Formats: sequence, C-alpha cells, structure tokens
Amino acid sequence: MTAAPSRNIHALIMAGGSGTRLWPMSRQMFPKQFSMSLTGGKSLLHATAERLQPLVPSAHVWVITGAEHATGAAYHDIQPYPHLIEPVGRNTAPAIALTAAHLVDVAGDPIMLVLPADHAITDTAAFHAALEIGAEQAEAGKLVTFGITPTRAETGYGYIKAKTGEGQALPVEKFVEKPDAATAETFVKDGAYSWNSGMFMARASVMLAEVEKHLPEVAKVIAAIRADAADKGWQPAINAHFADMPNISIDYGVMEKSDKVMVVPCSIGWSDVGAWDAVFELAEKDENGNAIQAPAITVDTRNTFISGAKRLVATIGVEDLCIVDTPDALLITHKNQAQKVKDVVAKVKELGGEQHLIHTTAKRPWGSYTVLEDEEGRGYKLKRIEVRPGGRLSLQSHQHRSEHWVVVAGTATVTCDDQVITLTPGQSTYLPLGCKHRLENLGKIPVKMIEVQVGEYLGEDDIIRYDDVYGRQ
Amino acid sequence: MTAAPSRNIHALIMAGGSGTRLWPMSRQMFPKQFSMSLTGGKSLLHATAERLQPLVPSAHVWVITGAEHATGAAYHDIQPYPHLIEPVGRNTAPAIALTAAHLVDVAGDPIMLVLPADHAITDTAAFHAALEIGAEQAEAGKLVTFGITPTRAETGYGYIKAKTGEGQALPVEKFVEKPDAATAETFVKDGAYSWNSGMFMARASVMLAEVEKHLPEVAKVIAAIRADAADKGWQPAINAHFADMPNISIDYGVMEKSDKVMVVPCSIGWSDVGAWDAVFELAEKDENGNAIQAPAITVDTRNTFISGAKRLVATIGVEDLCIVDTPDALLITHKNQAQKVKDVVAKVKELGGEQHLIHTTAKRPWGSYTVLEDEEGRGYKLKRIEVRPGGRLSLQSHQHRSEHWVVVAGTATVTCDDQVITLTPGQSTYLPLGCKHRLENLGKIPVKMIEVQVGEYLGEDDIIRYDDVYGRQ
Repeated sequence: MTAAPSRNIHALIMAGGSGTRLWPMSRQMFPKQFSMSLTGGKSLLHATAERLQPLVPSAHVWVITGAEHATGAAYHDIQPYPHLIEPVGRNTAPAIALTAAHLVDVAGDPIMLVLPADHAITDTAAFHAALEIGAEQAEAGKLVTFGITPTRAETGYGYIKAKTGEGQALPVEKFVEKPDAATAETFVKDGAYSWNSGMFMARASVMLAEVEKHLPEVAKVIAAIRADAADKGWQPAINAHFADMPNISIDYGVMEKSDKVMVVPCSIGWSDVGAWDAVFELAEKDENGNAIQAPAITVDTRNTFISGAKRLVATIGVEDLCIVDTPDALLITHKNQAQKVKDVVAKVKELGGEQHLIHTTAKRPWGSYTVLEDEEGRGYKLKRIEVRPGGRLSLQSHQHRSEHWVVVAGTATVTCDDQVITLTPGQSTYLPLGCKHRLENLGKIPVKMIEVQVGEYLGEDDIIRYDDVYGRQ
Repeated sequence: MTAAPSRNIHALIMAGGSGTRLWPMSRQMFPKQFSMSLTGGKSLLHATAERLQPLVPSAHVWVITGAEHATGAAYHDIQPYPHLIEPVGRNTAPAIALTAAHLVDVAGDPIMLVLPADHAITDTAAFHAALEIGAEQAEAGKLVTFGITPTRAETGYGYIKAKTGEGQALPVEKFVEKPDAATAETFVKDGAYSWNSGMFMARASVMLAEVEKHLPEVAKVIAAIRADAADKGWQPAINAHFADMPNISIDYGVMEKSDKVMVVPCSIGWSDVGAWDAVFELAEKDENGNAIQAPAITVDTRNTFISGAKRLVATIGVEDLCIVDTPDALLITHKNQAQKVKDVVAKVKELGGEQHLIHTTAKRPWGSYTVLEDEEGRGYKLKRIEVRPGGRLSLQSHQHRSEHWVVVAGTATVTCDDQVITLTPGQSTYLPLGCKHRLENLGKIPVKMIEVQVGEYLGEDDIIRYDDVYGRQ
C-alpha cells in the first residue's frame, strides 16, 4: 500500500513536549522524543520522520521545537530536518498556524500533515493507506483527523465521534474529552467513536483560513511574522513576534469549531507512548511476560519491564512492575500506576533536585559530557567529555575553577591562551583558573577525555564564552 | 541487670562468613559482618563486641576470620581486637576448638562465649542476664546453648528441645533441623522448643575435652598446632596446620553428641539478620510501614524497605518489597522471597560477573578506592582513591599502564622513582609505565585523588609490589 510521492505533502513534526511521564529516561532538557528509542537506537522523532517515507520526502519533513532543544541537547537530532524554532512554548495552534503560513509562502501551499514527535505506529502500511485517504480529503478542502479504532475502553485519550455514514472518511459529529470508564465502555460498543490520535491533515491554506476564522488573535501574530519575514527572514521574524501568541491547542481552537472536519478511522498499531505501561506494551516480551532491556537476573518474576544500562538489576518474586534504572535516578512503579510518575517529577522539583531537568549525560552540539562525581562541598567535579569529530567547544574561561584534562581516546586539540597543543591518549594538560581555553576534535574518531575540575564553586554557569560556533551565549 | 566483669569470660566472635543472602550490600570480599550496620554506622561485628560490655572486657573479645578479610577490606575492622586468622575456612568446630586451646594456654582457661559476628540483639539487658545464667552453668562444667523463645513458626532456623523441668537452664533433649511449617507450628505450641541462636558458652577446657572426645581428627590438628606454637608462635603454627582440619560444624560435631549440653531459654530481641526481610523487620518504619534508608520519593507505597546511598529511588504503587540499591547492582525482591537472593548470587557467579565478589568501593588497609569507570576495551580506568592519615600504599610498578593523579583533597606525598613530591588540591602528577611509585598520606586529614589509568591492560593484578607496610604480597 506504500504509495510513491505523487502528491505534494509536507509533514510537520511537533517536537516541543517535555514528556515528564516517561521520567527518569525523559527529562525536561532532553525529553522522550529525542532521548528515547523503541526501535533499535532511532529516537522517536527520527522514527516518526522515517515512517513517512516515501510518502513524504525527507526534505519536506519539518520539525518545530523549542530553542532549548534546537541549540541544546537535541541539536544533532534536529539539524537533519528543515526546522522552525519556537522561542517560547504556546501549545499546538500557534505552531501549526505558523507552519501553515510558512508552507503557503515557501512551498506552494502543499498538503500539510501534522504529527506529534513521540508516538509509535507499528503498522506502517495501514498508516500510509490512511494518509492516502486523508490526503484526498485534504485536497478536497477538508481538515482531516485520524481516529484510532479503540481496542479497549481507554480513559486516557480524547475520542472523536463520527457522523453516521459510509466511507473511509466520515464527517466529525463531535470531539469528546477523556471519558470515565463506564462512558469509555459505551464508546467502544457504539462503534462511531475513535481515539483522537493528535494527527491532522489539511491543505496549508485551508488550515490557515480556519485559523483566521476561529483564532483571530493567532492570525494577527501570523500576519506580523509574515510581514517581517520578507525582510528579516522567517526565524528572526518568529523570534520577534511569537511571544505575542495566545497559548491554545489546535483541538480546542480550530478542530472543535470548524465545520470542515473529517475523521479517517484506522487501525495502525498506534500508541501515544504516554507512560511506562505503554512502553512496556510495545516491548518484546519473554515467556514470563517480562521485557528486559538491561543486564538483569530475574527469579520468579512475571509481567515486568526492566530498562537500564550498565548496572545489574536483580528481581525476585515480583510482578507487574516497570523498573527504569538511570545513573542518577531509579523508578519502580506498578504498571497500572505509571501515570503517577508526574507526581514524582513534581516532588523532585519541589525538593529542589535536578533529576527532572537534566540527565547525568548532557548532550551538546559538539558531543556530550557525563558528570561522574559531583557532590556539594567536596571541592571538585569529575566529568567524562566526548567530542564528535569536527566538534568544537566554545572559547571560554572560568572564574572559580581550574581544570585537568586527561585524554583517553582520540586526538584532542587544546587552546590555552596563546598556546595550541595536541594531546593523544595518556597525555594531559592543566588549565589554570582564568585562562581562555578551547577543546576541539580535528580528527576522524571521537575524543574522550576525563576532566577534573577543582575550585570553590563548580556550577555550570561559571563560564564566560568568547566565541561559539553553535551560536550559544 | 548489667553485671560487672566478676567472672573471667572471654568471647570469640566468629567473623568468617560470606553473607551472600544480604547481597548486594554484603559481598564475598567484604561481607555483612564488616560492611553492614543496623545501628548508626557501627558494623555488625563491632556492635556484637560492644554489646558484651562490661561483661566481657574488650581486651577479651577475640575475633576469628579468614586471611582475605584480615589483611584485606576488613583490616581496620579487625585490628582493634585480639584475633586469630584461619588460613582456610573449615566451618565452626575447628575455629572454636582452636580458640579454646589457645585460651587454655594463654588466658588461664576462662569461660568462653562463642558468638556469630552478624546477629542482632535488641534487648541487651535480657541478653546479659542470660549470659550470667549461662556462665554459672559453664562454671559447673556444662556446654551451654542459648535458645530463643520462638515468636513465630519460623522454618528458617534449627530448634533446640529442652527436657521437661524447672529452672533458668535446662538439659537439652535434642537438636532439631529446620522444620516444615506444620512441624514449626507444633514446636511453638509445645513450649519445650527454642530457636538455636548459634551462641554457645563453656569453660575452654571443657569445650576442648568434648572436642577430644567427639572430634578426634580436630583434636589431632589442635595438638600439632599447640606443639608448634611454643616455638613459632600461634599464628604461624595455625598457618602451618589449619588446612588439615576437617570441615565440620560445632553443632553437628559436638553439641548434638555431648551429654553436657544445657539450654538457657531467653527472649532478647534476637535476629540472625539472615536476609533482607530480617533487616527490614529490625528497621524503623514510617506510618505506611516503609523503612526508607535512601534518598527516596514514595507514592502509594506500603511495607517497603529501601536502602541506597546517593541515587534517587522513586516508587509508585508497590508494597512488600525490599529494594537495595548499590553503585553497580540493584536488588528488588518481594520480602517473603528474600531467601532467594542466594540464587541471584549463584547466577552472577555463573555469568562471570564480579558483583558477588567485590564492591565498587574496595576497602584497603590504607583507605579505599572506588572504581568510577571501567569498561572493557575503552583503554582507561578511572578511580577515586582515598588514603587515611598515616596510610601508605605499597611501593609498586605496573607493566601495562601509566597513571595520572589529580589531588582533590588533603596533602599527598608521592614517590616516583628517585623523586618525592608533595601535592595539594588542584595539583597533579604523571606516573609513566614502569616507574616505581608510592602514594602516602603524612597529613592529618584524608587524601582524596582522582586516578586516570591509561593502558592496554588494566586489571588489578598488573602490580609488582616492592615493599608493603601491611605485609601484602
């Protein structure tokens, strides 16, 4: 059923979410769409883009996300795609309206497919077939939603009720908020209800016209951005005006109000990957119903999900658990209560921890660093720094710390004030407090080095940047 | 009820066990009697010795343990006590017989109290009262056992059946192996049965005479050791002959056969701390029945034990679990199945792991080191080394690695071939492959340093020792 790209379809992948319900793997500064994989190493975002091939050529896959991701941990995840950056988050309607306007102006008013970055779809052929049906409707001027045929009386999703009728696409009678369990049961039996997948399709100009009709406040900001874009370019124009947008969802702002909305009911193996129980549901299981994604020893263990990395996880006499082990935080939740992870995240914030915000390994445009030791009052901090081939850290200095660098892999080029030296594995250098220094990898393999910081204050904010190839301040 | 030390009592604390059922906190090279505390920082061994005060003066508290502990991780735990070292493990009878002979020869044939190193007793006054009763019996030539009045139909302990009679000490009718649940129920109802605590008391010469009577093979080796001890000293004589001992327990070899055995039934808040459920039982609990000994956030969590150190542990919707988090291994067990930890340990061994054997932090006579990074094939290993004031590592060299040392606390004195230098926090040195080097702390506060090893082979056995103040090879 996979069709050749005969239609002009552009996709918009919305990658602005913070995915707290998949803590501790998903964190605010590197959320699940970038940090998690369900399919052998590819991030959810990347899998979302690949799943569109060949229906939407990769050059037509747009990503919209926040500035903290675009220049931060997700820099390399976003670079391959044409992208727009939201200087501040304003929910889905402004992002979709903006992209619609942009596509009208620069891409010849294509059909626009809007997708969350963090969903899973296991039946790609059925998905493509649904997209074909949707595209026909979109070409006919409709706003198309994709309704997932319910497989259970789920209370965690909104529902779409179709009008009675025949056909692969049906007019929408109404959108329904998350129901209680009894109501959900009646929806499943009724047959006219499907889950709202959060995926939409429309011709860009149609979407824009509906925004103008139902969300004049959004349309006004769009007009200002378009006016400026001609002179300044799009991104600077977005940066200048986007904060004026109201915070509103496309469902509430447009879909629930428009009379052009159609639903394409489909069964495509869809999951919103909303919480650990959903990840467990999608994972491959052994004969005891366990999904083991860690070095683990299980004794009398059933229906349990174990995710980890290096540490050994041993379980005895447990069932129905999701266990998620990360270097600085461990989650053990009954799978039926996985939604409450957000309560844990709220508590971490309240207690002033950082485990909701950042990972022990922080990705950067030039590579990554992993904090190996960092305890208040110890007077030192220890990091492993990895620099990609071609990666170049900013030229910087520190007010409160000196640094020892020991190279353990690759060839590092180190600038320290007027000197430039080259270090190979087993070689080291010392960067006194206050010196202007830079680390770069001019080689072909990754540089790994151990950094020992010594000083009275060791916060990440003790950094003066003189020059940065990634445009960071 | 605490009595002054009016009698000549010596205690023998048997500290040779490997405590695998309290994995991952207890490990073969640093087992629970040294590595675990139930009472604010004191090891189980140290608590066992302290609990005897003032009944047994600390100079009369003997420790017997294996060589791997006495010169290894438990060096500083054993040093404060007079001690005997078993060059090889041979179960309890040889160790007790040896100590009895030693006490007859060097301590004027005192009353000898034998205690496992790893038990908990919460009612010290009642314990001392029981010891007084036992001491009277021992002075009268009896072998005294301490029988714990059962508080439940426990199937994990052996039982002692007393003969019918009156008095605070009763003749023993028989010893009974671990019963099944139904039999245990009848024992508890019967009233004549108590738990075998593994604690004994006898005059040293009486114990020795019983060994001669029932265990002639043991007595023969004892005779050889005594003969040699006059010339060589005791420990060298033990080292020369101990391997000839049969492997046999005091219960099986002597207690079950002697006609001199009495039992002192007592209620002293005793626990063998045999598995994590027992540790949980002894721990202080909050209003939800949880015992939290880690940074933790608990949501809808009941009757759960959490032990950890630095990492955040979050639980949601779980109950009746024991969660034990260590840097390289995590255990999650239903509390009623905690006995099966030994199956996990067996599996770790089988898989060739080291988590059953050693901790990430390895204690040494001079201090400790913590492996922070060590991955096969990476070409480097990272350690934090801590040296006690006065601590001195061996003069050593390596065939396959160079080392970078960065001092982060204290003042380190470093020998490297002909040079001796002093390093303060923020200073570093480089030790080329093959150089003869030594690290020592001549200061008053601990030295902490980060060591980066670089080389093709990074095993702990790449070490040539030229000189060691702790007598290690």
